[in-house]
Amino acid sequence: MNLENKIVNAMLENDKFSAWLGIELIDIKPGSCILKMMVKKDMLNGFDILHGGVTFAMADSALAFAANSHGRKSVSIEASMSYIESCKEGDILIAKASETSMTNKIGIYTIEVKNQNDKIVSIFKGTVYRTEKEWKL
Amino acid sequence: MNLENKIVNAMLENDKFSAWLGIELIDIKPGSCILKMMVKKDMLNGFDILHGGVTFAMADSALAFAANSHGRKSVSIEASMSYIESCKEGDILIAKASETSMTNKIGIYTIEVKNQNDKIVSIFKGTVYRTEKEWKL
Amino acid sequence: MNLENKIVNAMLENDKFSAWLGIELIDIKPGSCILKMMVKKDMLNGFDILHGGVTFAMADSALAFAANSHGRKSVSIEASMSYIESCKEGDILIAKASETSMTNKIGIYTIEVKNQNDKIVSIFKGTVYRTEKEWKL
Amino acid sequence: MNLENKIVNAMLENDKFSAWLGIELIDIKPGSCILKMMVKKDMLNGFDILHGGVTFAMADSALAFAANSHGRKSVSIEASMSYIESCKEGDILIAKASETSMTNKIGIYTIEVKNQNDKIVSIFKGTVYRTEKEWKL
Repeated sequence: MNLENKIVNAMLENDKFSAWLGIELIDIKPGSCILKMMVKKDMLNGFDILHGGVTFAMADSALAFAANSHGRKSVSIEASMSYIESCKEGDILIAKASETSMTNKIGIYTIEVKNQNDKIVSIFKGTVYRTEKEWKL
Repeated sequence: MNLENKIVNAMLENDKFSAWLGIELIDIKPGSCILKMMVKKDMLNGFDILHGGVTFAMADSALAFAANSHGRKSVSIEASMSYIESCKEGDILIAKASETSMTNKIGIYTIEVKNQNDKIVSIFKGTVYRTEKEWKL
Repeated sequence: MNLENKIVNAMLENDKFSAWLGIELIDIKPGSCILKMMVKKDMLNGFDILHGGVTFAMADSALAFAANSHGRKSVSIEASMSYIESCKEGDILIAKASETSMTNKIGIYTIEVKNQNDKIVSIFKGTVYRTEKEWKL
Repeated sequence: MNLENKIVNAMLENDKFSAWLGIELIDIKPGSCILKMMVKKDMLNGFDILHGGVTFAMADSALAFAANSHGRKSVSIEASMSYIESCKEGDILIAKASETSMTNKIGIYTIEVKNQNDKIVSIFKGTVYRTEKEWKL
């Protein structure tokens, strides 16, 4: 198994909130990641649409996996998200994380979240700090 | 009961994700809001600390309540969050939303999230679009 | 001449700061825009590299042109920028604005700024509010 | 002279773009900074109001001075700005940078920009990476 798969498996195995979300790993490569999730009733807000925090959480998980997959433990510093389309119960979301830039200390990632009709629902930009600790697996 | 209390009660009543988070309303005034939440095991990520998406969701709920409390239905356009301190199971978080600016169409809010030691764990800035629909309660 | 060209010409004609920056319009289509600029000595900060505000200004001009090119007067609400690579005097920058999403009221744009070696120096995400005023030219 | 004053003087002395802006240092303390600037004709955009890039640049300079004033060379990673009020020629702007958080590697700053009527025109949040290089003056 590749290092990136080992790392993400180790991260997911112990990630209770991603488990609650029902996040499924579709693809992982160094610096990129694809996740899938179905919108459940418990994720809705008072307007009966997906709570923005859940979309953010899915994108944030994609960011964490993409950034850590290089083998260095990496932590989020900052992220911003634009809300584009609302989602409802039963929608299937796909989050694609791609690496905009990576230096020794800092990585920048863009995550697009789309629904089952390939319509963009959210765009997310996140920054990570790359610590000096290596993943050992 | 004040209009702002009626609005937030109506929003919370039907907000399944805020219920799952265990969010408690401490204070609501037009344009500002204070929420409280305890970090539960199910909210942790693979590093055994609070998933960033949960902190974001709490702040996003505070934003929604503060913005809607003026009586106009308001929807988030964009938000950014800085991660400052990690949180662990059992921590008590307080999110305070305050209004930085409000025009006819756009509201800007800052949300500070602190822990039980009054230490800031996250800072969040969010923008809402104020629709022309009034809350009728 | 196309409407989008007429609009950007009208905007540029009177835009004293873009003139000071020496911004050159390379391409304009509804929702997208390409600008070019050379880094001048007066744009440098105390570290002898390009001041971040200048890169932001270039991206912000690209955002304004791309958003207004649809024919509706549009104003920036919020923008964020990640600093990736520093630039020095004489560098040639290209800013490409593309439309991530557009609804009746809100447009979201991503602007990539690259240097003469096609290396990304900055990534910018901006949100505009689309007023109901039409450009009349 | 205090270290923070020495550092900002050294930064300003060589900062050609801040000089062009006409930025004046009103106050500097470790982690905070106040700047003043008058809006000149050359800073206006095609709508005859202050170009957003100039407001950003002023805030970005305040961020740089506040962050570096602790004695460690610090570079911006990311910043976001909300546009609140437009400014016109002759307006006097005051930018106040305050430190939201500082760890060994990362500093987070909020900059409020107000006009001569004490009305907020812009709010800016920025993140810096604190290098290990000390200022030697």
